[in-house]
Amino acid sequence: MYQFSERSQALQAQLQAFMEEHVYPNEHAYAEAINTAENRWAAVPLMDELKARAQAEGLWNLFVPPSLAQFVDHEGLSNFDYAPLAEIMGRVFWSPEIFNCSAPDTGNMEVFMKYATEEQQAQWLTPLLAGEIRSAYAMTEPQVASSDATNVELRIERDGDEWVLNGRKWFITNAMYERTKIFIVMGKSDPDNPSRHKQQSQVLVPKGTPGLELVRALTTMGYDDAPTGHAELRFTDVRVPLENILLGEGRGFEIAQGRLGPGRIHHCMRLIGIAQRSLELACARSVSRTTFGRKLAEHQSVREDIAKCFSEIEMARLLVLKTCARMDEVGAKGAMDLIAASKTSVPLMVQTIIDRCMQIHGAGGLTSDYCMAEGFNYARWCRQADGPDQVHQMALGKMLIKRYTEE
Amino acid sequence: MYQFSERSQALQAQLQAFMEEHVYPNEHAYAEAINTAENRWAAVPLMDELKARAQAEGLWNLFVPPSLAQFVDHEGLSNFDYAPLAEIMGRVFWSPEIFNCSAPDTGNMEVFMKYATEEQQAQWLTPLLAGEIRSAYAMTEPQVASSDATNVELRIERDGDEWVLNGRKWFITNAMYERTKIFIVMGKSDPDNPSRHKQQSQVLVPKGTPGLELVRALTTMGYDDAPTGHAELRFTDVRVPLENILLGEGRGFEIAQGRLGPGRIHHCMRLIGIAQRSLELACARSVSRTTFGRKLAEHQSVREDIAKCFSEIEMARLLVLKTCARMDEVGAKGAMDLIAASKTSVPLMVQTIIDRCMQIHGAGGLTSDYCMAEGFNYARWCRQADGPDQVHQMALGKMLIKRYTEE
Amino acid sequence: MYQFSERSQALQAQLQAFMEEHVYPNEHAYAEAINTAENRWAAVPLMDELKARAQAEGLWNLFVPPSLAQFVDHEGLSNFDYAPLAEIMGRVFWSPEIFNCSAPDTGNMEVFMKYATEEQQAQWLTPLLAGEIRSAYAMTEPQVASSDATNVELRIERDGDEWVLNGRKWFITNAMYERTKIFIVMGKSDPDNPSRHKQQSQVLVPKGTPGLELVRALTTMGYDDAPTGHAELRFTDVRVPLENILLGEGRGFEIAQGRLGPGRIHHCMRLIGIAQRSLELACARSVSRTTFGRKLAEHQSVREDIAKCFSEIEMARLLVLKTCARMDEVGAKGAMDLIAASKTSVPLMVQTIIDRCMQIHGAGGLTSDYCMAEGFNYARWCRQADGPDQVHQMALGKMLIKRYTEE
Amino acid sequence: MYQFSERSQALQAQLQAFMEEHVYPNEHAYAEAINTAENRWAAVPLMDELKARAQAEGLWNLFVPPSLAQFVDHEGLSNFDYAPLAEIMGRVFWSPEIFNCSAPDTGNMEVFMKYATEEQQAQWLTPLLAGEIRSAYAMTEPQVASSDATNVELRIERDGDEWVLNGRKWFITNAMYERTKIFIVMGKSDPDNPSRHKQQSQVLVPKGTPGLELVRALTTMGYDDAPTGHAELRFTDVRVPLENILLGEGRGFEIAQGRLGPGRIHHCMRLIGIAQRSLELACARSVSRTTFGRKLAEHQSVREDIAKCFSEIEMARLLVLKTCARMDEVGAKGAMDLIAASKTSVPLMVQTIIDRCMQIHGAGGLTSDYCMAEGFNYARWCRQADGPDQVHQMALGKMLIKRYTEE
Repeated sequence: MYQFSERSQALQAQLQAFMEEHVYPNEHAYAEAINTAENRWAAVPLMDELKARAQAEGLWNLFVPPSLAQFVDHEGLSNFDYAPLAEIMGRVFWSPEIFNCSAPDTGNMEVFMKYATEEQQAQWLTPLLAGEIRSAYAMTEPQVASSDATNVELRIERDGDEWVLNGRKWFITNAMYERTKIFIVMGKSDPDNPSRHKQQSQVLVPKGTPGLELVRALTTMGYDDAPTGHAELRFTDVRVPLENILLGEGRGFEIAQGRLGPGRIHHCMRLIGIAQRSLELACARSVSRTTFGRKLAEHQSVREDIAKCFSEIEMARLLVLKTCARMDEVGAKGAMDLIAASKTSVPLMVQTIIDRCMQIHGAGGLTSDYCMAEGFNYARWCRQADGPDQVHQMALGKMLIKRYTEE
Repeated sequence: MYQFSERSQALQAQLQAFMEEHVYPNEHAYAEAINTAENRWAAVPLMDELKARAQAEGLWNLFVPPSLAQFVDHEGLSNFDYAPLAEIMGRVFWSPEIFNCSAPDTGNMEVFMKYATEEQQAQWLTPLLAGEIRSAYAMTEPQVASSDATNVELRIERDGDEWVLNGRKWFITNAMYERTKIFIVMGKSDPDNPSRHKQQSQVLVPKGTPGLELVRALTTMGYDDAPTGHAELRFTDVRVPLENILLGEGRGFEIAQGRLGPGRIHHCMRLIGIAQRSLELACARSVSRTTFGRKLAEHQSVREDIAKCFSEIEMARLLVLKTCARMDEVGAKGAMDLIAASKTSVPLMVQTIIDRCMQIHGAGGLTSDYCMAEGFNYARWCRQADGPDQVHQMALGKMLIKRYTEE
Repeated sequence: MYQFSERSQALQAQLQAFMEEHVYPNEHAYAEAINTAENRWAAVPLMDELKARAQAEGLWNLFVPPSLAQFVDHEGLSNFDYAPLAEIMGRVFWSPEIFNCSAPDTGNMEVFMKYATEEQQAQWLTPLLAGEIRSAYAMTEPQVASSDATNVELRIERDGDEWVLNGRKWFITNAMYERTKIFIVMGKSDPDNPSRHKQQSQVLVPKGTPGLELVRALTTMGYDDAPTGHAELRFTDVRVPLENILLGEGRGFEIAQGRLGPGRIHHCMRLIGIAQRSLELACARSVSRTTFGRKLAEHQSVREDIAKCFSEIEMARLLVLKTCARMDEVGAKGAMDLIAASKTSVPLMVQTIIDRCMQIHGAGGLTSDYCMAEGFNYARWCRQADGPDQVHQMALGKMLIKRYTEE
Repeated sequence: MYQFSERSQALQAQLQAFMEEHVYPNEHAYAEAINTAENRWAAVPLMDELKARAQAEGLWNLFVPPSLAQFVDHEGLSNFDYAPLAEIMGRVFWSPEIFNCSAPDTGNMEVFMKYATEEQQAQWLTPLLAGEIRSAYAMTEPQVASSDATNVELRIERDGDEWVLNGRKWFITNAMYERTKIFIVMGKSDPDNPSRHKQQSQVLVPKGTPGLELVRALTTMGYDDAPTGHAELRFTDVRVPLENILLGEGRGFEIAQGRLGPGRIHHCMRLIGIAQRSLELACARSVSRTTFGRKLAEHQSVREDIAKCFSEIEMARLLVLKTCARMDEVGAKGAMDLIAASKTSVPLMVQTIIDRCMQIHGAGGLTSDYCMAEGFNYARWCRQADGPDQVHQMALGKMLIKRYTEE
């Protein structure tokens, strides 16, 4: 029915080999490094070794599409061809950073490629593409529904040669990470503009700017996702020069829209990777454990659970691939229905799949001895990322009702 | 990601137009014709009119694959290209017969094409392809688990120049239909053969053969699916000449295996059609009905339900298409994992989808004013057809455990 | 934790014995009688025999509460004490009529007891309590959401000494039944009354009144529930004398409110009976059927399914009993939260339970050889009866939000 | 339908007041104390203050049943009367310890009361009842299915005046806690005994005994449940005097059986508390948050979710209460069916309920700002505690099949 390009296929094989040789054997070492670090938010030396190796092998910046290939050393990969690569990376929660393909940096780099000035690119995009620094994207706010980007309340005011920022943000991934050097901050620069979509701007705030405070690291379901983390931030009279604006005053909403589609889909791709790996773990467990005189593999309900996981993974994967292909063809906007379908279906399915696979593992399945608990947490918060699923279903439902009653 | 052949696309458009012009406007007339007929199992004149029209338009025998195209007037359609056509037909439960694409006749015709002698083909296949007669496939038995074809107990014994059949069958689709003229009967001809797969044979039993008794019409969930029906049969010393055997003595299991894959998938294709139609009905309902001062379309939970239906239909459809493509490529045997995934996922999903859409319709959604209740019933019994889903999940689970622990 | 009164316990034992001796052995005979009757809507002679026997044994009108005991020969049963009796009756879909405890007659008799004049009682209540006639309650209309009783559009106008009725109704249970002699009809008598709850009246319309037309029998999921049925009605200038009003002009909504609570709960009680019976059937099946060399009872997934059914039945039953006890204590109005919880939980749970039990039975489980398919249909339409579950959840949710944020 | 004793009702009121005055206001302080402690496994001073206060108020050792009341200052509470108290405590995950009612200490104290010698009681039970020390119960082992107590492999051998223990254990709650002083250890003392239920013994191992090693703290779904924790232990030639045996050699299985019923039910009671609290939080959230121009409380799907939570909590609570009442009446053994039903239904329901309530809270619902994520984790691991749900469903299914086919 479909085929990945030869280049994608070759990269899949290479990536798989890399994971097997360098990543899986280091999973516990990486976790141990964080858990015993003095500072949970410090860069882990092992990560640097792996990054160097990946970069040397050309497994680097693979998320970049053909249309932006001038920024990188390769010809770009379509969303469709990138999907199986993201799936492979998704098998280990922290591995995308190895390949400079981690969220939210991929989205941020795209923003820099598409909307930044050459000076901004030189200062921030170049080291990001080189993996030397990391970045954060500050949109969500605690006091308003983040599902609607026009709601943001952080105030961006012009004062002479500077923008002055005041407000709060939370769930800002990477913000805790010591390697993160730049924040893209969405706020309201023109609250009285009659167009609700022209009230927002996005400005660049370097780490360490006075008034930018890391209030605390947030946890989701008990996980702090160190070393990158999700932070709550407070901006108090944070001042940056006027040239730190992206694209132009009043164009923040436009940037936000352009950024979201691929981000949601990348999460889905990676989640399928962790679901697939959980299934494989469950199969391995089922032949190694005996209860009541029979291997788990011979219990009818274990087989049914494994069959269900396989079927659901196939369906989730196909939905994501179709979404990617549509995005490649007509862009994120034209693929909004499928993006919403993926965003609201895949994380929930993956959560269910992993739950089953954990259950097959007994109590041990819940521990950090396996990747499943962390994967479950990842799937769970994706149901909230960019707004709760319900909001996306509302928009999708509305669109479908229109489609099927007007056509 | 994928594209149907130009021929398939053209046929889709033609078929859609046919449905809109000739089938949808006749839905209530057809139901009325059956409900007021003296004999619920008689052919409905309206069906003959529609068949003549479809045949004249070339919308005929579209299920035939390229490999068997010598038997028909067209070049054959791959499973993949046929899938969207079956989906369109599936929007009206009884419409596949219009296009000579109804179960179990399609599977039976394939059996005749592949395994019958020229004489047998002349006698039965020719009128079947012409839509002049219908056929039944008698495999399932009340007293044994039909999920394992080797279990059949109906006895086929040689007595001089004849085969003598004794036993019971049930859920024999088409058997009640007055137009059905031939039964393909699976039974045990060599119960002591050390190979469990060589004990069975399939023989042809013309309707009206003495000793073949229609015990009763069975209902599923209250439906008798007239005029074709599902019957219980009793064979008492039913005698047919030796040449009525298919393929040869002891080869019944082989025929059964070859027959099953496409059949299961055809059901899934059609079910997606009825699910899609239910979704469209729910959308239409949501803009025409007001409760508590608001259109249903404006209720958040209605939108969520519609979004879920869309997402699930997309996933089910993609799974079926991938299964078809795999079957086209490597045959049913090589696609066993995907066939099982489809068979155990799609009917259940469709049942859930239709349940939601009926609920949006209020009590009226349960009546025969809509196609949904009948579609629900169809989905429900497909979870039992060719054996309960659980049996297929057992086999699939076993296969997957092997795959992921031996590789 | 709780105990039924001695009288209830004695009646349970007596009723169980009655069912075993007289009802279960007649299940197929009863179905056969309807399916072979010239008129599906005629009374079945077997029913009369069973009714006579039940009445002779004192198993009669058990639904009547102590507060209305003056109308019957016994002291009345609380909802709580009646619940296990209704559960036992629920094991056979058509059996409540045997004990003069069938819907909607029980609700209608209560209406007559509470709101009718002595003349009305003499004419209609007396034969109803004697089981000589049946009744219908005409509230739901096709063109408006029946979940809100104030929506009714059927017009009741005064013209001299008569009320004149014009409008449509549907899903009117019992209306098809030849034994039904009286319709309680809800309509709008004062559409301009500023109070939305005073615009409605209920009037008595004897069967055969000119202008009252049985348009058709409706099916739900393929079932016509003969001989009682669910009908669509048309009222065209139907005239009845002024004294045929119940309680008084403008008091229709008040009557409707008083009627609904127990009705919903009686359905739930009966549904638990059919769920429990399905579970018992599944257990029986599991020891009688062997697949893949093992009894179904030894398959892990069958055991899990049976365990789930048991747990869910226990919970559903306890919820219904608590609801009954609360109703007995504070009345239906004070128990609205629990009634809504039961109404929206129990039918859906029972549908799921029966679905599982049917699946354990293979294809045969879907046929009329068992009570399960009919029970499934009953559960399914209860999710729509008195309005879709969603409407009740809306009201319940609103009530709870208020409770937990104001207290 | 049921009523708690006056004493239980009075205690409920008192406990509720205590929670409101002393516990809820300290939730964040308690979490902060652990997160900033040098040693996560140290006792938290705040806990001691609260314990002293609770003990002074008589809210102490309430889990003790009447049959064991000689050990405490009150007359004992039946399981039924204790259930609502445990529910209230369950609203804050760590609060049961305040009232000396935390797992596994309650179960361990019961073991000491029922099976220990006076010397053992003086040494361990007295300080446990006083809340001066804590205890652990070491049964589960990593390499065998813990769902069957006869599987334990830890070796207990007699060597002169001592028992010598060798083996591994994991998921040993409280083992990390610095206040825990005594381990009850189940192991195999007579592996060749022909009776599989007489091969086990339980011996007392004081903390600090040479050879008893805390290998590591385990996490479940990211939580370490500090300061009590769940540990992996290694026993290497651990020696204790012969008198440290409980009840007698070969009686370990007997003790284990007696211990399990109430433990499972106490978990369920507490889980209902956290589910109820999550529902209340969701209601509060729904009136404080506005999206798309409407309060969440006015969105139909939010109301439906809240209605579902309420209904499910009612059912879960009733099931637990019935189980308690049955245990009070006939003991844990006679209530095995209901205990299994509760154990396999309640945690899963609570997980679903909390998941919904978190979703209503947006991303913040996943953080430690609320009690929900921790409650979710608690519900999740209860599905594995004392063996996966599936094992209990297997036993329950078997029991039910027997019941309904032999009677």
